[in-house]
Amino acid sequence: MTPDPVVPPVTTSAPGVLVTSAGEEEVLAAVVAALRRLCAGEAERHLRAPPVLDATVADRAGYSTSFPHLLGAVSRGGAVTDLVLTPAACYHVYPLYEGRVLAAPAEVSVLADCHRQEATAEPGRLRSFRMFETVRLGGAADCLAWRDDRLERLGHWLRTLGVPAERRPANDPFWGRPGRLLASAQRADGLKWELAADVADGVRQAVVSVNYHKEHFGAEFGIRTADREPAHTACLGVGLERLLLALRHAHGPAPEGWPARVRDALC
Amino acid sequence: MTPDPVVPPVTTSAPGVLVTSAGEEEVLAAVVAALRRLCAGEAERHLRAPPVLDATVADRAGYSTSFPHLLGAVSRGGAVTDLVLTPAACYHVYPLYEGRVLAAPAEVSVLADCHRQEATAEPGRLRSFRMFETVRLGGAADCLAWRDDRLERLGHWLRTLGVPAERRPANDPFWGRPGRLLASAQRADGLKWELAADVADGVRQAVVSVNYHKEHFGAEFGIRTADREPAHTACLGVGLERLLLALRHAHGPAPEGWPARVRDALC
Repeated sequence: MTPDPVVPPVTTSAPGVLVTSAGEEEVLAAVVAALRRLCAGEAERHLRAPPVLDATVADRAGYSTSFPHLLGAVSRGGAVTDLVLTPAACYHVYPLYEGRVLAAPAEVSVLADCHRQEATAEPGRLRSFRMFETVRLGGAADCLAWRDDRLERLGHWLRTLGVPAERRPANDPFWGRPGRLLASAQRADGLKWELAADVADGVRQAVVSVNYHKEHFGAEFGIRTADREPAHTACLGVGLERLLLALRHAHGPAPEGWPARVRDALC
Repeated sequence: MTPDPVVPPVTTSAPGVLVTSAGEEEVLAAVVAALRRLCAGEAERHLRAPPVLDATVADRAGYSTSFPHLLGAVSRGGAVTDLVLTPAACYHVYPLYEGRVLAAPAEVSVLADCHRQEATAEPGRLRSFRMFETVRLGGAADCLAWRDDRLERLGHWLRTLGVPAERRPANDPFWGRPGRLLASAQRADGLKWELAADVADGVRQAVVSVNYHKEHFGAEFGIRTADREPAHTACLGVGLERLLLALRHAHGPAPEGWPARVRDALC
């Protein structure tokens, strides 16, 4: 048997939904291993979450009201069920800590297939994609410092990978009029930052993002720090298929042809 | 950092939906590697498919009419979309071969998160689970011989793993009155067989199944053999979480404690 050649993602008849080859999976597995070493070395747990999520968790997290236009629900026979498609990997983490008091800051990495019911497809804007996240739960200062440190580390890592990235405030597509207020608060408070890279000619997209949630999840899920205050949380997310596209855009389609320092950083 | 201990699957608030640990993922990765060596050594491609599928593919495959009670559809804002949740990994394969004429029998392995909107949850009966499949496309005799060979190989492998399995005709839960006819035809023709193992005390479930589809998919997707006749197809499917449960049921929760021959077979 000859190994499956690395070819561009196999598109399917559904826009924004890709089948991947063994060669691509090999690169993605190396990316995840590198990310775990790089960003989740102190994590107490490494989790893998399923592509569906209890709908009440998406409601409690605020996703259903902030991004209803992107949320995919699971229905059967035309009736909605108790499940939605996982919109972000970290939503699987907060319920696991529900009601807990943290003796010290905690960190968890999680990998999941996520879904965003995007209206249009362009390179890197998939509806079904994989997200690697690390989540920090602790005090405000701890989470802020953690977020800034991880943004720094990831920026450095992307440079090592030969993927120049632009650091910019995130501009999430919150829905409707209340959403415009949320979006402007997000920018004004400098809560969420992203590292954007070229994934195709003239197409620059966020490959990495870091987000400081204040006590949003801690309060909702009853997670507290040792002083019994609601825990603050922050997360780092990496879009795996986007990073693969950015690597290919920078170095060509075949990993065998990538510069040695890039391949070294991924093994 | 101490490695994440292997613990029983992390249940979520949604029945039949599990978060898995790094230790569990390690076992599942070893299982997939072993399955590729064992059953898909001649495969021309190894694919990884997403958890969603073009709804028209599920329709054309016949799933929407045979198992409407198990099919999860993706909706947004109460309206159905063009996507369903992947009911079986192999449904991602047939469209890739649409309209092709096969010079020789082809074999493809595919791994995917699948979804069945089961009404009840019991050990091993998940709504979201992973399936490893290999698909054979060729002539009738080739597919039948392949199916029987793979059933034999898998039975032997399960014995090596210390998971005694019962070989039995499959009894798929086809829907409604026409479904009863399909189910009885499936049994009468001996098309689908499964290897069932204990996944908990008194709970025996299919861990492996093999299915000969005759020209069902070949005709629908216009896949032909060299003689320009519709290709026949067969598939082998392994439920990964179920196999993990069966291994634990047989040998205990921690892989470190499993017999050496079992660990050897998984590395």
